[in-house]
Amino acid sequence: MKALVFDSELRIEDLPKPVASGRECLVRVLKAGICNTDLEITKGYFGFTGVLGHEFVGIVEAAPTASLVGQRVVGEINAACQVCEYCRKGLQRHCPERTVLGILRRDGAFREFLTLPEENLHAVPDGISDEEAVFTEPIAAACEILDQVSIGPEHHVAVLGDGKLGLLIAMVLSRTSCQLTLIGKHAAKLDVVKDYPLQRVAMEVARGLARSFDVVVEATGSPQGWELALRLVKPRGTLVLKSTFHAQIAFNPAPIVVDEITVVGSRCGRFEAALALLGKGAIHPARLVQHTLPLHQGLRAFELAQQPGVLKVLLEP
Amino acid sequence: MKALVFDSELRIEDLPKPVASGRECLVRVLKAGICNTDLEITKGYFGFTGVLGHEFVGIVEAAPTASLVGQRVVGEINAACQVCEYCRKGLQRHCPERTVLGILRRDGAFREFLTLPEENLHAVPDGISDEEAVFTEPIAAACEILDQVSIGPEHHVAVLGDGKLGLLIAMVLSRTSCQLTLIGKHAAKLDVVKDYPLQRVAMEVARGLARSFDVVVEATGSPQGWELALRLVKPRGTLVLKSTFHAQIAFNPAPIVVDEITVVGSRCGRFEAALALLGKGAIHPARLVQHTLPLHQGLRAFELAQQPGVLKVLLEP
Repeated sequence: MKALVFDSELRIEDLPKPVASGRECLVRVLKAGICNTDLEITKGYFGFTGVLGHEFVGIVEAAPTASLVGQRVVGEINAACQVCEYCRKGLQRHCPERTVLGILRRDGAFREFLTLPEENLHAVPDGISDEEAVFTEPIAAACEILDQVSIGPEHHVAVLGDGKLGLLIAMVLSRTSCQLTLIGKHAAKLDVVKDYPLQRVAMEVARGLARSFDVVVEATGSPQGWELALRLVKPRGTLVLKSTFHAQIAFNPAPIVVDEITVVGSRCGRFEAALALLGKGAIHPARLVQHTLPLHQGLRAFELAQQPGVLKVLLEP
Repeated sequence: MKALVFDSELRIEDLPKPVASGRECLVRVLKAGICNTDLEITKGYFGFTGVLGHEFVGIVEAAPTASLVGQRVVGEINAACQVCEYCRKGLQRHCPERTVLGILRRDGAFREFLTLPEENLHAVPDGISDEEAVFTEPIAAACEILDQVSIGPEHHVAVLGDGKLGLLIAMVLSRTSCQLTLIGKHAAKLDVVKDYPLQRVAMEVARGLARSFDVVVEATGSPQGWELALRLVKPRGTLVLKSTFHAQIAFNPAPIVVDEITVVGSRCGRFEAALALLGKGAIHPARLVQHTLPLHQGLRAFELAQQPGVLKVLLEP
């Protein structure tokens, strides 16, 4: 079985087909997406080694529950203990014993077959294409914002960053009827959502919008985004941190105190909300796909994914 | 009229007695407290020049409403426009046009007489002594935490810092029945609340309590506090930033995102809650008073307030 492995360097390896045991299912991967977290891992952050990849859609080949076999599924990436304080609250995503697909102590989706616990899998309704379903995980991460922060028609909301995650967040938040602004550096990327009910604003223009937004979502993936986000948020407003980049930020916390800003870290979300949006055709993530390569060209796919201006690159085992 | 003025240096000046006009009242100051913010201002932060001081209790000498004259009062420090978006929401503390007593474009309380708008004043019930009432402003700042964050008996809460503000916050939070821990460097300061229902823990011991608290209140007034606070808070927990010090903090924001921490900036609070606690005798702020000096010894009072181990220093005009 071919797999794209990171272990101080990225390479294609031939690995044994995994064996599902206990609560685990065996899933044949149809498509998998390259995320910025994968790129960060290949820079040596997160300390992960193994098969990369956590965004996928696949077909169940073996499962404890026989009716699951043959179903098309997507999978929550955090495999949890199900008994701790967090799991009992439904926060398996924060289980301290968790493994995370392609990120933490669990091989990922850039291979022909993967395994995940049965409770992590969600059947994909027929109306959702593979090319849309493969975005379920990052769309769920965008939906997580709505579980953490109250956003309604009365709120001025800015999404900072026109990369993959920023565009998906803009798509999701546009469905709340809030007064939405997407701020980015690249006209071509901003145009991906030109038919959505939102304003598109260039990064340099946004600097003039100090203290204008009730909620600012930082999704630039760069330290500069933090400073601009703090500038844009109103007193008593909320700054949502969405990108997990690894860099030191230097800042003076006094304005957060004086203006009573709330900063909310936001990571993975519930798949139900994401599948509901996809099922209704309310958002259009497949627009982000720019390249689809076979898995054996995984190294080339990672090169493409790192080029400026490139949005989503998919792999097909 | 004697006044303690900061204008690149601290000095006692003889100023004309202020004249109250419009909505303003004239208040004769009985006692005023030196706060860490005053010390920060004398280091040149905040860019304020004028009469310092924002914690006071006094007697109304002149007011638009005649019945106020002769009353003993404390005063909210933010004087607001009353018409903007924030004022209409009851958030005068965030009015962009505000002046702030002894902090922003308004002379403060370290003088014989001050002026504040009538709506800023709160009568002090007879059962509260001057020495307690002078703490109303910082106690309100402690109570603000309870307006922003839900804290109940099921929550493990840590207050980081055994300075003036940390001790007042510990006193206030101890009345919520939460499971409270006060973390500090100085046994003598921690002992100020030894009869309160809380655990006292030395700073170096606290480093071993990683991911133990649902809520951590950072009140150390130092950049090191931020790093320890992030270490102590549980995944999905809340970090309340309470001290306004001016220094660059360098940090990696990834753990805030991965653990979905919420960081809440917290400044001034409502006086009603503070006066209610004082009226019930539920907290004992006068324990913090270590020196009371006449106003003409204001420079000496500031020297004392900056000495290690010294808690509250009061001035009497």
